[in-house]
Amino acid sequence: MRFEVTILGSNSATPLFGRHHTAQILNCNEIVSLIDCGEGTQLQLQRYGIKANRIKYIFISHLHGDHYLGLVGLISSMHLNGRKEDLHVFGPEGLKEIIDLQLHYSETSLRYKLVVQTTSPHTAETILSDANFEVMTFPLSHRINCTGFLFREKQRLPRINKDAIAALNIPTPYYPLLKRGIDYTDNEGKVHRAADLTTPAPVPRSYAFCSDTVNIKSYWPYIEKVDLLYHEATFLHDMLERAVETFHTTALQAAEIAKAVGARKLVIGHFSARYKDLQPLLDESRTVFSNTELAIEGETFEI
Amino acid sequence: MRFEVTILGSNSATPLFGRHHTAQILNCNEIVSLIDCGEGTQLQLQRYGIKANRIKYIFISHLHGDHYLGLVGLISSMHLNGRKEDLHVFGPEGLKEIIDLQLHYSETSLRYKLVVQTTSPHTAETILSDANFEVMTFPLSHRINCTGFLFREKQRLPRINKDAIAALNIPTPYYPLLKRGIDYTDNEGKVHRAADLTTPAPVPRSYAFCSDTVNIKSYWPYIEKVDLLYHEATFLHDMLERAVETFHTTALQAAEIAKAVGARKLVIGHFSARYKDLQPLLDESRTVFSNTELAIEGETFEI
Repeated sequence: MRFEVTILGSNSATPLFGRHHTAQILNCNEIVSLIDCGEGTQLQLQRYGIKANRIKYIFISHLHGDHYLGLVGLISSMHLNGRKEDLHVFGPEGLKEIIDLQLHYSETSLRYKLVVQTTSPHTAETILSDANFEVMTFPLSHRINCTGFLFREKQRLPRINKDAIAALNIPTPYYPLLKRGIDYTDNEGKVHRAADLTTPAPVPRSYAFCSDTVNIKSYWPYIEKVDLLYHEATFLHDMLERAVETFHTTALQAAEIAKAVGARKLVIGHFSARYKDLQPLLDESRTVFSNTELAIEGETFEI
Repeated sequence: MRFEVTILGSNSATPLFGRHHTAQILNCNEIVSLIDCGEGTQLQLQRYGIKANRIKYIFISHLHGDHYLGLVGLISSMHLNGRKEDLHVFGPEGLKEIIDLQLHYSETSLRYKLVVQTTSPHTAETILSDANFEVMTFPLSHRINCTGFLFREKQRLPRINKDAIAALNIPTPYYPLLKRGIDYTDNEGKVHRAADLTTPAPVPRSYAFCSDTVNIKSYWPYIEKVDLLYHEATFLHDMLERAVETFHTTALQAAEIAKAVGARKLVIGHFSARYKDLQPLLDESRTVFSNTELAIEGETFEI
């Protein structure tokens, strides 16, 4: 099953060096979500050949402009491009008011249903349960209310082991029962254990998105043992004071967090416009957590 | 005196083919104004090497997203990049409310003074008088309230004709008087006419910006004999019905307007995303008004 994230924007407050504001596309079994939506996201979608109207869910971490100012433009373009399907947007208090005000003044009646759901800034909560994955928010610690997002595949059922059942001639209506762990009793009364006739489904994978937060342990429990951790790393560690002052994280800290929570892989992003060359940020992170990559725009990371 | 306009965005509702939403930079004697500010304008400014903090005035024609959604991002970036100078924004009712709401939720206290002045949708009015130019709005006819802008150089004073005064030995304190038309009487009582000692200043040039309007004569008086007319030309004339329905203009109509008002030159823009190739729009316009150019992004037109 496909479960991957594509980087559309990687820079912090001001865009520079061809790097854009935060936005990521998450594809989970062909259900497409957008995580954050900085200015120009619709242009980045075009650049990487991603159809905006495939997006089903949008998750906004917080209301600093570099994380959401592309949203109303995207919503409008979806409307102009004939979208009919519902669009679900999850974000902080205020987001609905901002969208509604702008649609009001442009006198736009969307052709599709837009559902804006407000996330809690203080409590972790499951905000979405789709067929294949669920999404949880958890509070980060930034200058304004900001949430992280954890995307986790649902536990799938075991698969039928074709070799094991080959000789048994089990009627196919029993297959779903076997997957659910119900043993099969044949015509001679012999019990065949479901566990012997199936192979376990893969362990569910997870992706955590941690944008804009100072280094604080309170959210670590929510990202424990995550397969892929995206974490902001706005500064190099020699700028620690500035990082703390602006409620951001350094590349070294992001690596320490990834190590502490037992993440399998780390992608760092949200780079300060002071860094033209990102290699020092990568190098710094890898001193602590070798399986780090840079959030390069256009790159896709399998989870 | 420099008086020129640079195109930053040329497409209508949805950006495509590398074309962006409406935005233009007007440079009048090194006073820099921005006219409309579609999403991505701050990126376009970077692309063409124009420093955002040089912008003194911003004029927004109407509140459709493709004409203003880059504004809050630009205002924020100016703040982050240390702007100290006042910024004056002119736009329709609702613009101030939208800006204030977004700054409120991002908890941004701008380091500079932002003055947002509301334009009238129904009455032509002079909204700005700077040292070298003045700006007038006039109502256009679009789906929502929309104003055009007329930028006109102020009439400058005549210049001293150095050849004519060479032999007269006129004390320099008299020069400003001559420029103001006051004749000079020499020690022998002989009157030298100011008109003979000066050369007239150039005729003031003007630039009209007509975004998003159906073809209607009511605004023609405001753009009469304009040196450079920017007029939207969203469609080819075979789409006239669609143009009328959406309150837009065809390339042919834009040319007819330019001809009717006696414009010196016409630049057409706000192209529909249905046209990858813009040449047919240019060709159509030139059948009626030969001095037409396309609003190609990055191009600068002297006025």
